[in-house]
Amino acid sequence: MKKGQIIMILAVVVGLGAYAVYLQPDPTSVSTPDIGEQIESIASGDEEFLEKFEAARLIIEEHYVDDVDHNELLQGAIDGMLEALGDPYSVYMDQEEASQFTESLGSHFEGIGAEVMMSDGKVTIVTPMRESPAERAGLLPNDQIIEIDGETTEGLSLQEAVMQIRGEKGTTVHLTIERETASELVTIPVVRDEIPIETVRHELIEQDEQKIGLIEILSFSIDTAEHFEAALDELESKGMEGLVIDVRGNPGGYLDQVEEIGKLIIPNQQPIVQTESRSGEKMRFLSPLNDPKPYPIVGVTDRASASASEILSAALIEAGEYDVVGETTFGKGTVQQTIPLGDGSQLKLSVFKWLTSAGHDINGVGVEPTIEVMQPDYFYTAPVSVGEDPYEEDMLNEQIRSAQIMLNGLGYNPGREDGYFSTETTEAVRAFQEEHDLDITGIIDEDTASTLHERVVEEVRERENDRQLNRAIEVVIEQINE
Amino acid sequence: MKKGQIIMILAVVVGLGAYAVYLQPDPTSVSTPDIGEQIESIASGDEEFLEKFEAARLIIEEHYVDDVDHNELLQGAIDGMLEALGDPYSVYMDQEEASQFTESLGSHFEGIGAEVMMSDGKVTIVTPMRESPAERAGLLPNDQIIEIDGETTEGLSLQEAVMQIRGEKGTTVHLTIERETASELVTIPVVRDEIPIETVRHELIEQDEQKIGLIEILSFSIDTAEHFEAALDELESKGMEGLVIDVRGNPGGYLDQVEEIGKLIIPNQQPIVQTESRSGEKMRFLSPLNDPKPYPIVGVTDRASASASEILSAALIEAGEYDVVGETTFGKGTVQQTIPLGDGSQLKLSVFKWLTSAGHDINGVGVEPTIEVMQPDYFYTAPVSVGEDPYEEDMLNEQIRSAQIMLNGLGYNPGREDGYFSTETTEAVRAFQEEHDLDITGIIDEDTASTLHERVVEEVRERENDRQLNRAIEVVIEQINE
Repeated sequence: MKKGQIIMILAVVVGLGAYAVYLQPDPTSVSTPDIGEQIESIASGDEEFLEKFEAARLIIEEHYVDDVDHNELLQGAIDGMLEALGDPYSVYMDQEEASQFTESLGSHFEGIGAEVMMSDGKVTIVTPMRESPAERAGLLPNDQIIEIDGETTEGLSLQEAVMQIRGEKGTTVHLTIERETASELVTIPVVRDEIPIETVRHELIEQDEQKIGLIEILSFSIDTAEHFEAALDELESKGMEGLVIDVRGNPGGYLDQVEEIGKLIIPNQQPIVQTESRSGEKMRFLSPLNDPKPYPIVGVTDRASASASEILSAALIEAGEYDVVGETTFGKGTVQQTIPLGDGSQLKLSVFKWLTSAGHDINGVGVEPTIEVMQPDYFYTAPVSVGEDPYEEDMLNEQIRSAQIMLNGLGYNPGREDGYFSTETTEAVRAFQEEHDLDITGIIDEDTASTLHERVVEEVRERENDRQLNRAIEVVIEQINE
Repeated sequence: MKKGQIIMILAVVVGLGAYAVYLQPDPTSVSTPDIGEQIESIASGDEEFLEKFEAARLIIEEHYVDDVDHNELLQGAIDGMLEALGDPYSVYMDQEEASQFTESLGSHFEGIGAEVMMSDGKVTIVTPMRESPAERAGLLPNDQIIEIDGETTEGLSLQEAVMQIRGEKGTTVHLTIERETASELVTIPVVRDEIPIETVRHELIEQDEQKIGLIEILSFSIDTAEHFEAALDELESKGMEGLVIDVRGNPGGYLDQVEEIGKLIIPNQQPIVQTESRSGEKMRFLSPLNDPKPYPIVGVTDRASASASEILSAALIEAGEYDVVGETTFGKGTVQQTIPLGDGSQLKLSVFKWLTSAGHDINGVGVEPTIEVMQPDYFYTAPVSVGEDPYEEDMLNEQIRSAQIMLNGLGYNPGREDGYFSTETTEAVRAFQEEHDLDITGIIDEDTASTLHERVVEEVRERENDRQLNRAIEVVIEQINE
């Protein structure tokens, strides 16, 4: 599953980390003298500021050619201030966005517990989670959800469908399902429940007669450190001889969670992270651990590893002198704080910088791995979209380029990978079509494109194709044997 | 010159029209009861709005990770409100932008009177205007401006260089010039003067024994109607038998100017334009003219003809039953008003819609010509940019596509125009290089690309290549002979 995310890297890099400690300012107090002293020192032009802003607002509300939505105007004004900061991580979240954000970093949500995806434009179950309402109700992988409570899912985005399937614990949602093995649609009632959000996965891999522990951290949510510690304990009790920590695709999360994890593995009382305030004041968060773990540790990163993931990766390299395998990380070096505005909406504001264990600012730069390993090229392709005209010999465009990279990755040599549909590409497409029961035309039509995509997704999910993870395991085994 | 603009269509579509009558609200009065009555009816949530906005502003100013610029924050807030309207024509202009905007629609500016362009990254004189300070000082076409008042122009944008060359009437600017015929740099003092902004050009074309008047309107500035009337009078007194009005590349301007022009040529007391306010109230501006002109009239438009240009084009077609030759126009159907905010900055706000003579809303749609004529393909290409690796056979990209269209337009057949560098393309490049004293390599390097661009610009400026204008003249001649 984790590797499957790699193909969607661009979609993943949203909603990056936040800091857990909430400020609780009373928004009604802003004009009282309580906090006035500090505020007067900020700017002498406050009154002018407000007068000019109000003048502009009233002119717009009175004179604009169309009706003006009061709330949109307010939200626009706040968005505009944040945009003027030039910081993509400082954002305004309305009530719904704020509660989705809080939920995304919580320990659970309320729903049916099934992973879903869009396939051929239909909302499709990837897999029901173990012991979830979805599993208990008998939902199966590849079930296509045609209706939710009698309403068609046609035209819904995946996110919109998910929002309709979710709901309060104890309530029932009726899903109308199309299943390959059934001749007609079936409607299945599912009683919603509390679904834990899994942010830590672990397993013990036995390879070359060594026991390697693998811990994947999917994000740094409210209880991630606790789960990490439990996983570590279990792996240690099973006699793990080396540990791989995988933070690929991990967008970050709460700062205190990565600090807690750092305390378990960063040795020599080294800093796990440093923070720097607007005034330049620095704080260092030291690990209480004296001795290194009695086994080697190797991290795994990719370009979507951001924020708290980068803190952990940098600490592994700089404080632990451990190796990190993979790609340079995303490069987000600021910490945000969410601040309620009193009506359910929140500001998420960058309030300080963090520096790596050794004091480096990685904002916009990222953390370089000690051992750079890229995945095969086809891991990074987007699905080929076919418009009205299918692609055929002598045409050229970016879509054909993607298809060529995919064909190559799947073992069909297209001759070139620059988007020019050559005679060799036609031959490769024919060979692919023949082996996948498609019409053998040598032309990339919608069917061929979607089969290509499905095959690539399958290959991406195979651990044997995961060069980064396999290299990390090799490195750990080498270090065990040193 | 006019046709030369076509190649830069994307750059031209900015700073579209405005309405001349200024509101003069006193921004200090916004919180007084004077205008309170109207304002109270707008929204009951005003106080909440301001409280929440202030809360957000104070949180940002106090807690953001970096120093916050008070003015940028205010400008951001106003920009944000305008952005929430979803109207690209409603914008905030700071003092400098506001005065540039006003100047751009004025009758003159203060400077040296030379048209300049960027060529090979250098600020280059295209041509000094007649009887301008630039001409009097002896500046010549293709002079490259290396320094302005002793400061290098390296790294300046064209706009920045222009701003430094301009200045108050009577002051002197020293330009250090590189000239092909001179062995060393020369520094030339130029005394700045008032330079009239030419928005109307006219000439009498004698073709097929007919006298055709051509009036180009470059924009609708403060004195454009006056100059249009003078041009019309002169052409009529010279016995013009048909009239072509060219508004290609014309971004619009003052509404009253197009009304005044309409009054001179739109017959039968028809509406020149209609306006519609937020409440749906319509006004029609009727032409006082009874009879049509005793000669045929044909308009010429392109996709950059916007706003006031579209009003005129639609009135020609709908009220005058005249032909318009060229392309569907830009599609801007709103009128803006500039409103000073008291400190030199201004809001430019869409305050009403305009409808065509017959009452159509063309916003987002444009005015269709009665006779569609496109320019040759190479008119629409962007210059070919060559990076580190020059382009050669078997490569493919958008740049090569542009080069192929240019080669074809210049009479060298590249075999295909889809960006694949074929053997025929190599042959075409070799032939082009041979005829232009370039190294005959068949490879598109920087020299070849810039020579291609220069040749295309030359061709675009030739009237014989201007299909739209030539077709308009043909149509007028046909109508004279009917």
